[in-house]
Amino acid sequence: MLTREDNELLTRVGPETPMGTLLRRFWFPACLAEEVAEPDGPPIRLRLLGEDLIAFRDTNGSVGIVGAHCPHRRAGLFFGRNEEGGIRCVYHGWKFATDGQCLERPCEPNDSEATRANVRLKSYPTMEAGAAVWVYMGPPDLRPPFPAFEWARLAPGQRTLIKRLQHCNWAQAVEGGVDSSHISFLHSKTEAQLARDPSVNNPLHAADRHPTFEVEQTEYGLMIAARREASAEDYYWRVTQFLAPFWTMIPPVGTFKDSSEAAYDGHAWVPIDDETTWTWSFAANPHRDFTEQERLRRGGHDGMWGPVDEQFHPLLNKDNDYRIDREAQRQNSFTGISGIPNQDAAVQESMGAISDRSSELLGGSDRGVVMFRRLMLRLAKDLAEGREPDCARNAAAYAVRSASVILPKSTPLRKGAAPLMRSS
Amino acid sequence: MLTREDNELLTRVGPETPMGTLLRRFWFPACLAEEVAEPDGPPIRLRLLGEDLIAFRDTNGSVGIVGAHCPHRRAGLFFGRNEEGGIRCVYHGWKFATDGQCLERPCEPNDSEATRANVRLKSYPTMEAGAAVWVYMGPPDLRPPFPAFEWARLAPGQRTLIKRLQHCNWAQAVEGGVDSSHISFLHSKTEAQLARDPSVNNPLHAADRHPTFEVEQTEYGLMIAARREASAEDYYWRVTQFLAPFWTMIPPVGTFKDSSEAAYDGHAWVPIDDETTWTWSFAANPHRDFTEQERLRRGGHDGMWGPVDEQFHPLLNKDNDYRIDREAQRQNSFTGISGIPNQDAAVQESMGAISDRSSELLGGSDRGVVMFRRLMLRLAKDLAEGREPDCARNAAAYAVRSASVILPKSTPLRKGAAPLMRSS
Amino acid sequence: MLTREDNELLTRVGPETPMGTLLRRFWFPACLAEEVAEPDGPPIRLRLLGEDLIAFRDTNGSVGIVGAHCPHRRAGLFFGRNEEGGIRCVYHGWKFATDGQCLERPCEPNDSEATRANVRLKSYPTMEAGAAVWVYMGPPDLRPPFPAFEWARLAPGQRTLIKRLQHCNWAQAVEGGVDSSHISFLHSKTEAQLARDPSVNNPLHAADRHPTFEVEQTEYGLMIAARREASAEDYYWRVTQFLAPFWTMIPPVGTFKDSSEAAYDGHAWVPIDDETTWTWSFAANPHRDFTEQERLRRGGHDGMWGPVDEQFHPLLNKDNDYRIDREAQRQNSFTGISGIPNQDAAVQESMGAISDRSSELLGGSDRGVVMFRRLMLRLAKDLAEGREPDCARNAAAYAVRSASVILPKSTPLRKGAAPLMRSS
Repeated sequence: MLTREDNELLTRVGPETPMGTLLRRFWFPACLAEEVAEPDGPPIRLRLLGEDLIAFRDTNGSVGIVGAHCPHRRAGLFFGRNEEGGIRCVYHGWKFATDGQCLERPCEPNDSEATRANVRLKSYPTMEAGAAVWVYMGPPDLRPPFPAFEWARLAPGQRTLIKRLQHCNWAQAVEGGVDSSHISFLHSKTEAQLARDPSVNNPLHAADRHPTFEVEQTEYGLMIAARREASAEDYYWRVTQFLAPFWTMIPPVGTFKDSSEAAYDGHAWVPIDDETTWTWSFAANPHRDFTEQERLRRGGHDGMWGPVDEQFHPLLNKDNDYRIDREAQRQNSFTGISGIPNQDAAVQESMGAISDRSSELLGGSDRGVVMFRRLMLRLAKDLAEGREPDCARNAAAYAVRSASVILPKSTPLRKGAAPLMRSS
Repeated sequence: MLTREDNELLTRVGPETPMGTLLRRFWFPACLAEEVAEPDGPPIRLRLLGEDLIAFRDTNGSVGIVGAHCPHRRAGLFFGRNEEGGIRCVYHGWKFATDGQCLERPCEPNDSEATRANVRLKSYPTMEAGAAVWVYMGPPDLRPPFPAFEWARLAPGQRTLIKRLQHCNWAQAVEGGVDSSHISFLHSKTEAQLARDPSVNNPLHAADRHPTFEVEQTEYGLMIAARREASAEDYYWRVTQFLAPFWTMIPPVGTFKDSSEAAYDGHAWVPIDDETTWTWSFAANPHRDFTEQERLRRGGHDGMWGPVDEQFHPLLNKDNDYRIDREAQRQNSFTGISGIPNQDAAVQESMGAISDRSSELLGGSDRGVVMFRRLMLRLAKDLAEGREPDCARNAAAYAVRSASVILPKSTPLRKGAAPLMRSS
Repeated sequence: MLTREDNELLTRVGPETPMGTLLRRFWFPACLAEEVAEPDGPPIRLRLLGEDLIAFRDTNGSVGIVGAHCPHRRAGLFFGRNEEGGIRCVYHGWKFATDGQCLERPCEPNDSEATRANVRLKSYPTMEAGAAVWVYMGPPDLRPPFPAFEWARLAPGQRTLIKRLQHCNWAQAVEGGVDSSHISFLHSKTEAQLARDPSVNNPLHAADRHPTFEVEQTEYGLMIAARREASAEDYYWRVTQFLAPFWTMIPPVGTFKDSSEAAYDGHAWVPIDDETTWTWSFAANPHRDFTEQERLRRGGHDGMWGPVDEQFHPLLNKDNDYRIDREAQRQNSFTGISGIPNQDAAVQESMGAISDRSSELLGGSDRGVVMFRRLMLRLAKDLAEGREPDCARNAAAYAVRSASVILPKSTPLRKGAAPLMRSS
């Protein structure tokens, strides 16, 4: 439960808001590189943190992420000509480089490098990594090093990346990611279904639906560990990291002894604005290439994070009640909704665009959620008082893997799981 | 004409508003019983008085009307599992009885009856009567007795019930119901049509289009009588009761001497929120069962209150200009719009979602409308000052019938019509 | 660039706003005469300067433009009966003449000419000219003479008129009309296309894309002249008048010596409300009848100002990105968008419904735009202080023609072009 004031603080991300200012201290994915694949190809529209932008790849292959409106008379640059090293407004021909510098004002009789020296289009620095174009929307002099996400550094064959549109605030999406407790319900099968086919669920989830949570603050954010009884002697541990400002890691699901040979997944929940979010899903296999089947499953439009259409809009969505099948809900799955991301979207979007956290009743199983809010509110308030967030500049801290492991009850998690959680 | 302040007071029905507080002192229909026919069937969404709710029928057949959001983390209970005596949220499995009591929190390690004693979902008492589920949304200690509406107590064969969505504030819909004057115009035939087929209209309406109104305050609300010249010796009386807070009665239409053997109809205009209304239409035949044809006409989706689709949305609506036929308007009917409820919806919705009553020009024929507003404003203001509305607790007062009767001019209406207007 | 306050002042046109008050001092087109062709035909909905209205042609052929709501109980008069000299509300039968006078209140027992003397429906004076119905929405005692637009006085064969809906504020549409600079870009062909087919563009535009602007205040508004190099000895002049409050003239395009035998075109940008505009396009040929082909091109739904549907909504619009063809944008035309009005709409609508003029960077080529704003802001501020706009009453001042002409550099424009710019 939050006060109304803290709920506003947590959720509002526009320019000048405290949380928006904090998020602008980090690099994050803006679009898929394939969306602006072609040099001199058509620009695309972007909206990020409540700002209307466009992205385009110039003649030399650099990607520009710039304001959506020409600074001359505010015409939309989406309709612009992307040609010969810049984007040209079709209204009067003003042209801009990816860094926002005005290159030409052909309608002006006295146009020259000198007269246009201070003519600039809003522009943000970009990077390409892991099949995404990344952006940094903060103050130029505070641009941080690029975070050491393993998936973004792996060879193309060892990673996947896909996104989908979500109709709610970023924070309630993140809260789904840091909440290990819900997987035993939202994503579970009915007992009838398990009786028919015991292979469909993780017996370790089904056996103990009351995990104990350990949440620990780290240099990157939070290490959230859910502990379940595996046997009389062992615990089953599932580690779901939260990496500031909006990343969550998904531990491998399985019944193996540990996840040291496993691929892992994760999300970024990038705010489009206060009420809409891009849900990014990545996968990383540090040990080998994904098979084609694995690639389609993890990274395809019709894979485990879909189905989504050409614009990455989910086909199961709030307008069609996520195609809930009430008979399936009786017989097979807890929700009657097909697909984990659609189950997540159903509960998260049904809270309303911005959930009213002032009327919640939290329990012991919400510890990850509570710690996430506390951390982000503190970072935002600190920054508002002039204290920069350390994690934004600590690139190496982001080299972590999620993990799952069965350990003797006597072994502390930190000791038993540490090697699993660090990437090269 | 009202001041802007009184117009706000009359029309706003959300929680904490004076009129909303008044309406919450009464039982009223929430949905058709058939919408939640099946025990353990899918919940349905409701919106009433600006509050988002769901309704579900539990294993024992009790109907719960409860808040739309789980009190734990605000997930939508529409997606919930209705099973074994309660509705279970699919996010973390919290389960609630129809009275709102939390029955289980399976995600909590220390869940017990004691720890969840104070965990409640918003819930309102319900009743079933007359094929509807009724709800009381006021303070528990002020729950009134169930009003003695005759139609809701008749055998199923002697009553019908249907609803339709209306896109305007409840009060301007009620005003159509208390306004006997408009039927000589809005619902009338053209003179050309009457010349072709005199049977299509009530000659008593056509003969005297300037009725005189007598409006009298009663224990249930208002008795509104329209008096027309029937002959040199007789008056034709038409009594349209208004029963607080939003019921109107429709007198039998015909040329019989009196309505003592007639069926009658009526409406409830239940606010969904300030700008949308459920228009309920009931019929009662105290004397015999309706024939199948009469049932379809009064209670069917394609009957006299339709046509409406599966969700009770009218097929003739503002988006298609109620399929007005300008040629029919010239030749046949005053409006060119087919069907009485569609004619009413056209004029009421065309005033805007909330009519600007500060710029009206009322006349003598608007007496029913004026008295309705005066009564409701007084009841709301009284309640705001702590005086409870007597009518809400006077169940017996609601045992009234509408009436139409031809009486000698020398006979006072009260004397001549009293027996017609009281139900058993 | 404007302050936020001046941007508000320039763009807001509702009742009581300073600019809305100024615009209400002028006659302007309300609808096409063909939209209310038939006496006693169906009324149509109009929205002008933020006011909801209807138009209807009465039995005698007079067109009434009146408030959309009956003053009795606010029912929509769009559903009214247009019959025997007036529009009759279908709710209770009140009837009104085109001048707003109430003619009948049949529901009232004591209706008489005396009792309804002060019962009036809002009504504005109308005129018919040039295939349009014109309206004057200002104070009755300040009704100005009808402006001497040549096109509205020509024989039907010598003029055309068409309109289209535009989704932005009227002022940014006008700014496109007074901005001669953009035609060398927005409406131009690519060099590749010009190389393939030199006939597709005006070589005088292509040869000198940096015109020099002369803007001069006149009794009707502004004379905006764009001067380009035609040869070593000559200038090519293009005169785009702005006539207060929202008219712009389009000079003939061609390579002829002068436009004395040419037809010309023009626009009115009539505010529907702050965020929507009717873009009217007229053509005038003072010298001869248009051919059928010319008529279809200038005045047809599929002509040069279209394509538009039956309701005059453009088929190429913001919902389909004006059907931009990126390959055509590379190869053929500067925008890849087909049709001059669609190119204009793309840039104007892409600025947002109301462009944020406080964050522009204007240059020397924006002189027409700057002068337009300055003039209109001054007229609005003057009127707010009680000084009436002279131009509104100067009907003769509107008898102007646009012009294009090649003149020796030594000849002043005023001297060389004056005869071309005055209509009879």
